[in-house]
Amino acid sequence: MSEGGRALYAGVELGGTNVVFGVGHADGTLLDRRQMSTLDPDTTLRGIARGLDELAGRFGPARGLGIATFGPVRLDPTARDYGSIGRTPKTAWRDVNVLQELGSRFGGPVDIQTDVIGAAIGEATWGAGRGRDPFVYITVGTGIGAGVLVHGRPITGLLHPEAGHLRAPRAPGDAYPGGCEFHRDCIEGLAAGPSIVARWGGRLEELDPDHPAYELIAHYLSHLVTDIVLCVAPRGIVLGGGVMTNLGLFPAIRAGVQRLLGGYLEVEELAERVGEFIVPPGLGPDAGVLGAIEVGRNAAEIGRAARDP
Amino acid sequence: MSEGGRALYAGVELGGTNVVFGVGHADGTLLDRRQMSTLDPDTTLRGIARGLDELAGRFGPARGLGIATFGPVRLDPTARDYGSIGRTPKTAWRDVNVLQELGSRFGGPVDIQTDVIGAAIGEATWGAGRGRDPFVYITVGTGIGAGVLVHGRPITGLLHPEAGHLRAPRAPGDAYPGGCEFHRDCIEGLAAGPSIVARWGGRLEELDPDHPAYELIAHYLSHLVTDIVLCVAPRGIVLGGGVMTNLGLFPAIRAGVQRLLGGYLEVEELAERVGEFIVPPGLGPDAGVLGAIEVGRNAAEIGRAARDP
Repeated sequence: MSEGGRALYAGVELGGTNVVFGVGHADGTLLDRRQMSTLDPDTTLRGIARGLDELAGRFGPARGLGIATFGPVRLDPTARDYGSIGRTPKTAWRDVNVLQELGSRFGGPVDIQTDVIGAAIGEATWGAGRGRDPFVYITVGTGIGAGVLVHGRPITGLLHPEAGHLRAPRAPGDAYPGGCEFHRDCIEGLAAGPSIVARWGGRLEELDPDHPAYELIAHYLSHLVTDIVLCVAPRGIVLGGGVMTNLGLFPAIRAGVQRLLGGYLEVEELAERVGEFIVPPGLGPDAGVLGAIEVGRNAAEIGRAARDP
Repeated sequence: MSEGGRALYAGVELGGTNVVFGVGHADGTLLDRRQMSTLDPDTTLRGIARGLDELAGRFGPARGLGIATFGPVRLDPTARDYGSIGRTPKTAWRDVNVLQELGSRFGGPVDIQTDVIGAAIGEATWGAGRGRDPFVYITVGTGIGAGVLVHGRPITGLLHPEAGHLRAPRAPGDAYPGGCEFHRDCIEGLAAGPSIVARWGGRLEELDPDHPAYELIAHYLSHLVTDIVLCVAPRGIVLGGGVMTNLGLFPAIRAGVQRLLGGYLEVEELAERVGEFIVPPGLGPDAGVLGAIEVGRNAAEIGRAARDP
């Protein structure tokens, strides 16, 4: 109401390391944004609920709440465990029903997506993914994940895409065993943040700019992007997350994808326009929370439609 | 009219080796089905046009024509070369505009998809893909391709999925260089029909049932299916095409996918129900032409809508 009566929506980006939440409008305005560490489920969920209450006290009640959570998470509304976290390495969170826990405290229309689908929705709505369909947001950080939008909506089905766990041929001479708890040397196990620290004792930005680490990580991320191009035929790909703040990776990945596709797909996006096809996020670190707010807006709209058909 | 006034639709499945075309009804009835070899563009396209004329003479005019062609093919209706064949090894067909050639001779509403998207549409409408969304049809024959349906519609974008050209880690001890003209040792180059003949001098069904070829081919196809599961999260996967008529591959591929996913995705489809998740076609060799007929039906519906909004 203090905002001239414009409708308010709340969003929670529940990442594996940090939580970001806030409130905003349907036009992508973020009124307030708060951040805290992701701790045990009880502390974290109570902290989020308290924070949302404070924001409601300051800006007025939100019409809908969107949650964008780390996964795997059950997104099938017909499933018994809809909204529950699955087999994550963060064992305290297994079987925690994030949708139910936050939704019941919020009390209004609510919906849930993965964190990376949230970021995809944010970028597709207001960022570097506008007008691109299909569109894919890939995050490369503590883990590697992809949010895939087709015909304007997220792909969910057998859970949701988990493209970080794709396998790729090894880079020549790479004998690192890989750090994925489930697959060992999937792409996440070979190229996510923790594997970089395990391989070279520091983050990419702490290494020499011509350290061979860049080429090796670009090798695996080029395979990841190529696989997604071949399976999903996207019109745009955003690469975000902590590792991708090393912008020097982008030219190497673009060249790697072109090399791997070998000219098979004759499209401008893979030739002269590759620099507009594989890009950094347009919303920076706000893609996830803004996407969650858009998920909340959509939940409110569906909620309204259900009451007034 | 001879069919009691029920509307008739025509479909053409233009494969790399054979053309199948026919006419049918919206309920999946195939009234007539004809087959010929895929030769040079001129002979082939004239043969199809003549055959469709004969079918129209016998059954009456079709309201719409659907084309399901080998690729790569431009499927973007806004592209200058919409309906044209791209960089195929069948060089005589490069830049042939199949949509224009067949559509102008037909004279009514027409639409085009890839052959494997056509088969996906056929299986999703009347076969083993009913009620599955997302749904993927994979063909393993002269080439390897995948048709992906999400929210009930094919994924197209940057051309269309070309999942046969994914890369996978080599099977231990496999030194075959691979036969793909563009990528050499992509999955198509290592596991499609021609590579089987090149490796072992005959087709899979001509080899001893416990020949190691089965395990090797299953290795690469397990990677293909796993990659698609991780990128697209389908609720059902059909494996068709000549190589997959060797049904002994199915148990090996199901086990391979389970092994590669390592229990990460906890869903029934990858555990006790894997036998219903990765399956042979329900429509046998008619999936493609039936799918093309459905594409024709849809073109007629859109055509009508465009005239009478």
